[in-house]
Amino acid sequence: MDEKTLQSILDMHQAMNIEVFYWWCTAIMFLIHAGFLAYEIGASRSKNALASGMKNVLTLASIIPAFYFVGWWIYNAFPNGLIPIEASAALPWSASMRPDADDMGTGIFFAAFALFGATTGSILSGAVIERIRLGAFLILAVILGAGVWILAGAWGWHPDGWMLHKLGYHDVGAAGVVHAVAGFFALGVVLNLGARIGKYSKDGTPQVIAPHNMPMTLIGLMLIIVGFFGFLGGCIIFNTGDIGWTTIYGNRTNLSAFAFNTLMGFGGGVIGAYLSSRDPFWTMSGALGGIITVAAGLDLYNPGLAFVLAVTGGALMPKIGALLEKRGLDDSVGAFAVHGFCGFYGVVLVGIFAAGFPNVGEGVPDVSFTGQLTGAVVMALTGFIPGWGVAYLLKKFNLLRVPPHVEVLGLDLFEVPAKAYPESLSSETSSSVPARSGGVVAAPMDKRPDIS
Amino acid sequence: MDEKTLQSILDMHQAMNIEVFYWWCTAIMFLIHAGFLAYEIGASRSKNALASGMKNVLTLASIIPAFYFVGWWIYNAFPNGLIPIEASAALPWSASMRPDADDMGTGIFFAAFALFGATTGSILSGAVIERIRLGAFLILAVILGAGVWILAGAWGWHPDGWMLHKLGYHDVGAAGVVHAVAGFFALGVVLNLGARIGKYSKDGTPQVIAPHNMPMTLIGLMLIIVGFFGFLGGCIIFNTGDIGWTTIYGNRTNLSAFAFNTLMGFGGGVIGAYLSSRDPFWTMSGALGGIITVAAGLDLYNPGLAFVLAVTGGALMPKIGALLEKRGLDDSVGAFAVHGFCGFYGVVLVGIFAAGFPNVGEGVPDVSFTGQLTGAVVMALTGFIPGWGVAYLLKKFNLLRVPPHVEVLGLDLFEVPAKAYPESLSSETSSSVPARSGGVVAAPMDKRPDIS
Amino acid sequence: MDEKTLQSILDMHQAMNIEVFYWWCTAIMFLIHAGFLAYEIGASRSKNALASGMKNVLTLASIIPAFYFVGWWIYNAFPNGLIPIEASAALPWSASMRPDADDMGTGIFFAAFALFGATTGSILSGAVIERIRLGAFLILAVILGAGVWILAGAWGWHPDGWMLHKLGYHDVGAAGVVHAVAGFFALGVVLNLGARIGKYSKDGTPQVIAPHNMPMTLIGLMLIIVGFFGFLGGCIIFNTGDIGWTTIYGNRTNLSAFAFNTLMGFGGGVIGAYLSSRDPFWTMSGALGGIITVAAGLDLYNPGLAFVLAVTGGALMPKIGALLEKRGLDDSVGAFAVHGFCGFYGVVLVGIFAAGFPNVGEGVPDVSFTGQLTGAVVMALTGFIPGWGVAYLLKKFNLLRVPPHVEVLGLDLFEVPAKAYPESLSSETSSSVPARSGGVVAAPMDKRPDIS
Repeated sequence: MDEKTLQSILDMHQAMNIEVFYWWCTAIMFLIHAGFLAYEIGASRSKNALASGMKNVLTLASIIPAFYFVGWWIYNAFPNGLIPIEASAALPWSASMRPDADDMGTGIFFAAFALFGATTGSILSGAVIERIRLGAFLILAVILGAGVWILAGAWGWHPDGWMLHKLGYHDVGAAGVVHAVAGFFALGVVLNLGARIGKYSKDGTPQVIAPHNMPMTLIGLMLIIVGFFGFLGGCIIFNTGDIGWTTIYGNRTNLSAFAFNTLMGFGGGVIGAYLSSRDPFWTMSGALGGIITVAAGLDLYNPGLAFVLAVTGGALMPKIGALLEKRGLDDSVGAFAVHGFCGFYGVVLVGIFAAGFPNVGEGVPDVSFTGQLTGAVVMALTGFIPGWGVAYLLKKFNLLRVPPHVEVLGLDLFEVPAKAYPESLSSETSSSVPARSGGVVAAPMDKRPDIS
Repeated sequence: MDEKTLQSILDMHQAMNIEVFYWWCTAIMFLIHAGFLAYEIGASRSKNALASGMKNVLTLASIIPAFYFVGWWIYNAFPNGLIPIEASAALPWSASMRPDADDMGTGIFFAAFALFGATTGSILSGAVIERIRLGAFLILAVILGAGVWILAGAWGWHPDGWMLHKLGYHDVGAAGVVHAVAGFFALGVVLNLGARIGKYSKDGTPQVIAPHNMPMTLIGLMLIIVGFFGFLGGCIIFNTGDIGWTTIYGNRTNLSAFAFNTLMGFGGGVIGAYLSSRDPFWTMSGALGGIITVAAGLDLYNPGLAFVLAVTGGALMPKIGALLEKRGLDDSVGAFAVHGFCGFYGVVLVGIFAAGFPNVGEGVPDVSFTGQLTGAVVMALTGFIPGWGVAYLLKKFNLLRVPPHVEVLGLDLFEVPAKAYPESLSSETSSSVPARSGGVVAAPMDKRPDIS
Repeated sequence: MDEKTLQSILDMHQAMNIEVFYWWCTAIMFLIHAGFLAYEIGASRSKNALASGMKNVLTLASIIPAFYFVGWWIYNAFPNGLIPIEASAALPWSASMRPDADDMGTGIFFAAFALFGATTGSILSGAVIERIRLGAFLILAVILGAGVWILAGAWGWHPDGWMLHKLGYHDVGAAGVVHAVAGFFALGVVLNLGARIGKYSKDGTPQVIAPHNMPMTLIGLMLIIVGFFGFLGGCIIFNTGDIGWTTIYGNRTNLSAFAFNTLMGFGGGVIGAYLSSRDPFWTMSGALGGIITVAAGLDLYNPGLAFVLAVTGGALMPKIGALLEKRGLDDSVGAFAVHGFCGFYGVVLVGIFAAGFPNVGEGVPDVSFTGQLTGAVVMALTGFIPGWGVAYLLKKFNLLRVPPHVEVLGLDLFEVPAKAYPESLSSETSSSVPARSGGVVAAPMDKRPDIS
């Protein structure tokens, strides 16, 4: 075998292995969305279950093409801030944005990034269930999932991003770039959207609006956790030659490090949330909260430390949720507490427990507390400002929220329209819908009223 | 390191990588069946939920061994048409059909193909819920899943298949070979099986028979989508040496191409189906319909084009479903519309948008409209004729459909017998079953009547 | 390219491939737990659904850190029996138990093993639903999942384990080491725990306590099956160089062998269980039972034989379950029948159908009937004795079981406290809980009573 043949074989093997790895990352990340779908349907009251589910499906379907048409270009064009650099190869009409037997990379990286984007949309989705208009939601989701977060990604999750080069920003598992950005965006939207009718009594005391199907929320959250292995796998760089794994910042790492700390983050988060809340919903969310708390330093923490940090993240998370609730903010599934708070907290923790860790590359500052705190604030603002701003505009044009009678009777009846459980006699439905004989509805499918 | 050692290491690495890839394809494809189970249970009325679920489990369990005993041989023996060639290595008593440390391939390819076969059975399964006899269904499923589709596979999804060599047939993602064949087979069965009692009023107007658990259908469909990454992964050939990926026809391609177009097919299909139907069930099915629409040309389409094609597939799909419904065909979950129509349509589209694409191999015609249209018709007939024929025979012997009183009272009571939700007081059950005290049933498990 | 560079590239490629493989094994194994969660929630009555689910989540969260702190050391320290050998590298404060860019292995193997451990906890979990105290359960689960099974693993699932070296023990897919150990442990616990109130009439006749949501149990079981591909993948050793796959005992094998027999085990188990029981719950469990029945000899059986063996395992399984039920043992989901019996049976079968198979290594006896039978008994006792003993102690201190009034009114009300389906009017709940208006509960979340 001559040198050239050998090199060609080695290159091809590795190129294929890289494609396979991110292919499975993408596939497994779809479980995040299967999970969010189950979780948000379960967390809604049954009168809104299908409207919630439709939102999840359409989130994915809208963000993916939007990410193809503009998101990938934003990532490549804005590492320096708000002035784009040349990145025409990432424009949808370029040769690299289509099937090419010699380009084993662009499609698969695009796919993984598109799924990250879809994740931000699904995070937002939970916070706003049961009263947002579908159209307004999709506008917000596309802005977040194919614009805002990937701009933050170009800044803080890119080898040339200004946050790495100016701040030494370290956020390996996208705690800030995905979770904090999406969580703070959701907070901005919720501030404009307002609480669900009935969420607060006249004196402002928060009321429990119970998930109609708690088991479904738990199953959904477990599927999200499975999906996180695709998400976190998508956060590591599979290099060619004998370089091995690196983080997106070029530091050497490996999946063993990720495995240690993902598992310990899971365990710690659940335990922390359980001890702090005893609530099944928060306990299960603690799995997410724990992983997000340690995500930014997944490559660096001692697993024992990761466990302890995740316990604190998991324990604080329900308190943050309760705090928001008391302040009149109806974040229906605790999206801000889980993603916004834990993401922000996770970025800052790297500045405390991994300060001084040397970054790769000339002139790149070391990891530092100031750098991480500044970075976390940048992420929070990058998410919050457009979330608040766009939601404010939508509200001004009266496009943000469904009318009160729709909310009271349920979005499924008006926006979908269909019933999640047409056979069931729940306390909700038994009062408004007559029982049917034989489960057969009189109106043929194509004659059902389209009231949306 | 001498040349021989090096070659041996390189060969072993790649052989292992190949096994790993198809192992995960197989595993992920099981999610298709987890998804179909959830989807078809949810789409049934609760009185038939368990009978639907049992059907799905037994489909897999019957097709897999049947595929081992005859299916794999059919694939290897019939590339030329209906006259078998020598393929004794694929017979169950041959040395290659058992564990062999030196044969890193047969088992894993068998597994992936067996799961394709099981998928055809699950596609059929949804169309016939709520009135087919379990035994008749299993006969049909085994004929389809271990016989019919793999014969079509030998013709159109095999490097030596006559459809490639005569027609230049191009169907990379098995739109025709799996989906059209299974969809048209289902159509043939439904024609003989007849509509569910109550599906049509006396004047023939179709009635809505609503899924008893719409959230479960949505979750199921999301799991099917995750499983599709295993399915589509199983459609690409992982070669040794420096050859890289090829399609089953030997054209060079890669997972980046598949990733671009799978995602754009997903997005387009959902959006098309939503715009055309507004229905949650069809919208979610649009994800499947969109991917199937672009599957045959997954390696060739520009992603923007794939998106547009998927929009059209997704938008037409509910119309096809409504058309069938009006003609008295009760395809209970739209299996023909999603799989039969989109599969057929997807094959034809390659003839329009990729005509002239050169095939590999001497004398193999280029991709052409005529070749694709002929191919699509071959697939449709190969599915339809045995589906119609076997169902006709079963009907003649009165084996196809449960008696009317079983259908009215629910298959679960007679065929299973058990209740899906023994605690619930649905409109169905409250009229026929007395409420229980304490959730405890009087009869011990081994004394329950076996009426089936 | 010089020799050293080439070696370095080859080593790095393979090291990365190894990490990737076990990373996905770990991820896919989380689906086992998503599945167990769904399955055990569905198998409970609705008044206990959330308590069951909480148990599953906390099982994982407790076993994972415990396995990090002691389990991994036990595996490495006890291959010789009960006297530990030097294994300080597996202690949590050692350098190998933390992120290290040069150690591409420890983290990922730890992760896969931790998930095996968690699986034993989830197996126990199902047997004891609806009456065990959460605290007692977690103690038992941690002892089993981070202690007992991994001690058995050091003995019988380790290249230096005494069971291999003395008995020629062959248990490739962990039928004995995981399933028999966990099943017999569960049996010991159930003996002390006692049957659920209402499970037996006054004359001792067993009553059916029906799963409140049978579809959810079926979906859960399908997810467990998907997860089994991660589990079984984690049972094969991915070697470097040109060695290829081996079993944990050093015999050459490959994923093709695993694929053949996993699929045939699935099919046979379902068919056997269906023919023997006609029950949907047992039929679906037959998929697990069949795979476990053939797991110990996954590398050796002819697939046709594997199918037949799985049919017998699947068919016997419900009979074993009924036998226990008649003897007053309330194993609520048949965990002993599925895991304990089939695991034991599977180990013994290797001694019948693969006796004489030569083991690798000097002085290691061949596979033999006596060796396998002895091995199976060792596994059974290693599970049963601590399970019975610890449960006995917990019972003596009155810590094992919830008080009768809690059991009657439901654990969710006291241990969680929340309702799984707050909107539903089931026969259970309608008698004890007044209907609500508008789905809004009066008490804010932070004012709910914590009665646990």
